[in-house]
Amino acid sequence: MPELRRDPIVGRWVIIATERARRPSDVPRARESKPAGLCPFCPGQEDKTPHEVYVSGRPPASPPNSPGWRVRVVPNRYPALMIEGDLERAADGIYDRMNGIGAHEVIIETPEHELDLGGLTDQEVTEVLFAFKARMIDLRNDMRFRYILLFKNHGQQAGATLAHSHSQLIALPVTPRQVIEEIEGARRHFEHRERCIFCDIVMQERKERSRLVLENEEFLAFAPWAPRSPFETWIIPRRHESNFEAEPKERLAFCASALRSTLKRLGAALGDPPLNFIVHSNPLRDASSPSYHWHIEIMPALTHVAGFEWGSGFHINPVPPEEAAEFLRLVVT
Amino acid sequence: MPELRRDPIVGRWVIIATERARRPSDVPRARESKPAGLCPFCPGQEDKTPHEVYVSGRPPASPPNSPGWRVRVVPNRYPALMIEGDLERAADGIYDRMNGIGAHEVIIETPEHELDLGGLTDQEVTEVLFAFKARMIDLRNDMRFRYILLFKNHGQQAGATLAHSHSQLIALPVTPRQVIEEIEGARRHFEHRERCIFCDIVMQERKERSRLVLENEEFLAFAPWAPRSPFETWIIPRRHESNFEAEPKERLAFCASALRSTLKRLGAALGDPPLNFIVHSNPLRDASSPSYHWHIEIMPALTHVAGFEWGSGFHINPVPPEEAAEFLRLVVT
Repeated sequence: MPELRRDPIVGRWVIIATERARRPSDVPRARESKPAGLCPFCPGQEDKTPHEVYVSGRPPASPPNSPGWRVRVVPNRYPALMIEGDLERAADGIYDRMNGIGAHEVIIETPEHELDLGGLTDQEVTEVLFAFKARMIDLRNDMRFRYILLFKNHGQQAGATLAHSHSQLIALPVTPRQVIEEIEGARRHFEHRERCIFCDIVMQERKERSRLVLENEEFLAFAPWAPRSPFETWIIPRRHESNFEAEPKERLAFCASALRSTLKRLGAALGDPPLNFIVHSNPLRDASSPSYHWHIEIMPALTHVAGFEWGSGFHINPVPPEEAAEFLRLVVT
Repeated sequence: MPELRRDPIVGRWVIIATERARRPSDVPRARESKPAGLCPFCPGQEDKTPHEVYVSGRPPASPPNSPGWRVRVVPNRYPALMIEGDLERAADGIYDRMNGIGAHEVIIETPEHELDLGGLTDQEVTEVLFAFKARMIDLRNDMRFRYILLFKNHGQQAGATLAHSHSQLIALPVTPRQVIEEIEGARRHFEHRERCIFCDIVMQERKERSRLVLENEEFLAFAPWAPRSPFETWIIPRRHESNFEAEPKERLAFCASALRSTLKRLGAALGDPPLNFIVHSNPLRDASSPSYHWHIEIMPALTHVAGFEWGSGFHINPVPPEEAAEFLRLVVT
């Protein structure tokens, strides 16, 4: 019997439909390749990107945009939004528009073309998270921006156009509706119970353990109750904190360890799947919140978003999260 | 300069980012094929599907589940939801669940394995819409169901697992959150202005004409103001009507003509793209509504849903709807 499960924060329903996993298909699957060639994110190609806005690992006296870095952040050469200009909100009959003002940056996570985040060391992933934090704190000073979205597209099916390991940051002049819905959902729970719903989730997951992937002193990785896709996994701080950029560096090291190990397990379990991850954090202009709790959502792109998902916002997931978590706990990496 | 556009109904923002269309990619594109082989939706293979629940075109005296049909509806062999059973809503700590009760049916649109909707005649597509309507009216009698979603997945990238032209129906025990948001958005507009927002859109699009693809006596096809994907196209009745299943048969013929011609134009313009379409209609238990207006949303699956879209609900679209509409108006089919 399929099961309908409701996400406790935003109220999204998911159909856990194990029957569907066995259906035959006459359509061959696309394979991913990691092509070689002149990669603009490789050391020695620094002039192929816009000027760097952050770098780590290079000696202080070295010239900018030269090799020797471990993490490098540059503006996106083909940005979805432009940093210069004013919003100029306007109507067009019944419609609304504004200029696409914002920042769009690329975090190049390693100089090694062939490595992914899961193949780096904990220390190297920690440096990537430091770069995330540094860019958020810098861009927060631009008062046009309301929200900064940090995310990773890995693999073509997950929207990556370049194979060299990187994540992205988009600073937006409006808070996205989906972020507002999540924050409102958490606030409703807090109003009723005077507890953070994410803290409740951490407590229940640590007690039940069936959806737990791993935990360390500060962070938990677990399969959420109502996952939208097979092997969806969340990384969450055990202690309450609403804003990613407020985490002290020593706690980000534990986050990096949980993230790296989870990505490595997903890679081993599913054969380097295409995936996205998204850092969910409190909006820039909001003070620290007792009801919201930042976290990372990792979504392997194993199923296509099809008509049913587009039309309903429901997702059909053939793999129960308890089975996915067990698999990830036991997989040899 | 990219432009941010707001969908007037649900408030979803879209980034129209023409710069992005020119970015290079090192990832090869997957190609679609339409494999042969024993297709369970072809005539003569009727015993490979569950028993039909609707059929058209076969003489009245012919045995069920035999060839000679033009449109055939069968339960999905690998259903996301099961028709038998009770909901059994329950809590699991802070979480909610219920049994996955619902109907999941497949509308086989033509006996011809090689044809798609755009390649049928207007009369044949009209028969497909009659099948949609007949199944909705039949399933509406089951009081466990709150909403029926009619949709099509065409091509692997859009979630189709079988190539033979078909659409699907899922009857749900809850009204999807996304449907509620759309209905609420339309209701807010109605409360302020005492007009249906979709009727306002029809009026503005017919006047401006820049986003119009085609129109006939009863229906309009147009590129919406804030399209989530390149070449997103909506089919909408010019006269106000909230419920798809309330349309008289003579008006559905005009809908079929607009839908067929639009799909044919999309196929010619984009080379048989993978696509989804979704029938947006008022929930089953609601009476005819002055604020909601049924329509069909067609979404070519040309871009991947990536981390930014998952995290924000924003979409990045490199093709302005005015350009897409002009292209579809002029394309030779």
